[in-house]
Amino acid sequence: MKRSAFFISDGTGITAEALGQSLLAQFDGIEFHRVTLPYIDTVEKARGAVADINESARSDGQRPIVFDTVVNEEIRKVIARSDGFNIDVFASFLKPLEQELDTHSSYTVGKSHGIHEMTAYKDRIESVNFAIDNDDGARTQQYDKADIILVGVSRCGKTPTCLYMAMQFGVRAANYPITEEDLSNDELPKILHAYKDKLYGLTIDPFQLAAIRHERRPNSRYSSLDQCSLEVRTVERMLKKADIERINTTTFSIEEIATRIIAARGLKRKVGL
Amino acid sequence: MKRSAFFISDGTGITAEALGQSLLAQFDGIEFHRVTLPYIDTVEKARGAVADINESARSDGQRPIVFDTVVNEEIRKVIARSDGFNIDVFASFLKPLEQELDTHSSYTVGKSHGIHEMTAYKDRIESVNFAIDNDDGARTQQYDKADIILVGVSRCGKTPTCLYMAMQFGVRAANYPITEEDLSNDELPKILHAYKDKLYGLTIDPFQLAAIRHERRPNSRYSSLDQCSLEVRTVERMLKKADIERINTTTFSIEEIATRIIAARGLKRKVGL
Repeated sequence: MKRSAFFISDGTGITAEALGQSLLAQFDGIEFHRVTLPYIDTVEKARGAVADINESARSDGQRPIVFDTVVNEEIRKVIARSDGFNIDVFASFLKPLEQELDTHSSYTVGKSHGIHEMTAYKDRIESVNFAIDNDDGARTQQYDKADIILVGVSRCGKTPTCLYMAMQFGVRAANYPITEEDLSNDELPKILHAYKDKLYGLTIDPFQLAAIRHERRPNSRYSSLDQCSLEVRTVERMLKKADIERINTTTFSIEEIATRIIAARGLKRKVGL
Repeated sequence: MKRSAFFISDGTGITAEALGQSLLAQFDGIEFHRVTLPYIDTVEKARGAVADINESARSDGQRPIVFDTVVNEEIRKVIARSDGFNIDVFASFLKPLEQELDTHSSYTVGKSHGIHEMTAYKDRIESVNFAIDNDDGARTQQYDKADIILVGVSRCGKTPTCLYMAMQFGVRAANYPITEEDLSNDELPKILHAYKDKLYGLTIDPFQLAAIRHERRPNSRYSSLDQCSLEVRTVERMLKKADIERINTTTFSIEEIATRIIAARGLKRKVGL
């Protein structure tokens, strides 16, 4: 059974997508055809969106589900008149919030993922640059400025996790790959000793690691299961011996790895919220 | 007036934060103290969250606002009994959706930001690697594999935008910085001619550019308003002459720049949704 789902927003559409996804994920059996319509910030554009929704309703033979996080009431009313089934976030929650907060909302568009403050913006960009500059153990001189240093074998998820932490939390995250030359024994590489409090280990199932590495270098020693197992086991012993907290990334998304480490370490969010 | 706001989730907390932020952003006059409590996936942890909420209620002398995207009903009921003002997303929307879709939801935790499919996961990681490998014009040999190539002066937002596109959309985004040597005339650098269809320009207000550059190299020629103005104006002429679409990044967040370009170009999302 195919069904269409629309995520409609006057801004980026990120909130509408996040919310809609959480809800639709609860309906396993149904295959949704997903469409995001961002920047629907005029009545004119809303009419265009309605035309799209109605077209889907016709071709699917079923009402599309419409997640709507548009702030402006006039625009929302246009969307509400479509042939879709409307989940209207602002209509549902804004009135009760106004009552609770005993004030009127400002009904301003696109406030949630806009650029709020120059300082927070710069913090974020600086954190992204920090993650790139301190990726892959290329440099270690800036480790004293890092909020966290991820440690693990090549391809276990360190780089995207660092970038996600930088982008979403403004956290300065460096990463150090444990490579062949560090694997001769179970001792933490010397360079890391001074930063033990900042280290966090990533481990991974060797089968998955082999699959991931195979994409990059097919049929190499690097991607062989033997090599992957050896590296993962040695690093796990190393982390255990040095008493460094770790997370197994195998079944987690980047968001999950990042938010779990941030929660575990009590790192402070510097941007966004 | 200070007021606490809690974002409570059985997963990463990303949806609760996104939704809560959109709504709170409408209340300008109020300063919210924001707390995210992710991975509240047991009744025990929910009781801990309630203790935190009640403690805030006491110290603020006001009910905290609680945004709750927990799926499990038993856990939600615990949270609903706190001293906070509860915005319960699943309670509000899941029942009507079940009715509309004529089926029961699976009430499964953490489905929205989890790792769904290995292929999508790999796509995403590969895109992040692509963005890093093709950052800052360092390499151009892979431009034929790029979905989009961002062009602009140094520090106008190219790198974080590419990384965001990679992370959130699985789009392969490269970027090429227009540097001093490209600025001798208004012609697009030769290396870019073959990829004209993939180019997208970023421009920025020279004052803001100077402020951003000043953070990196204070009181340098690089960060002087004269130099920034010259570069921005030249690049704008260059883009106009070559008829390349562009966006002024000055007042936009990374999310906005990325989603606007993706919408303008009709790029397909390869991950996430």
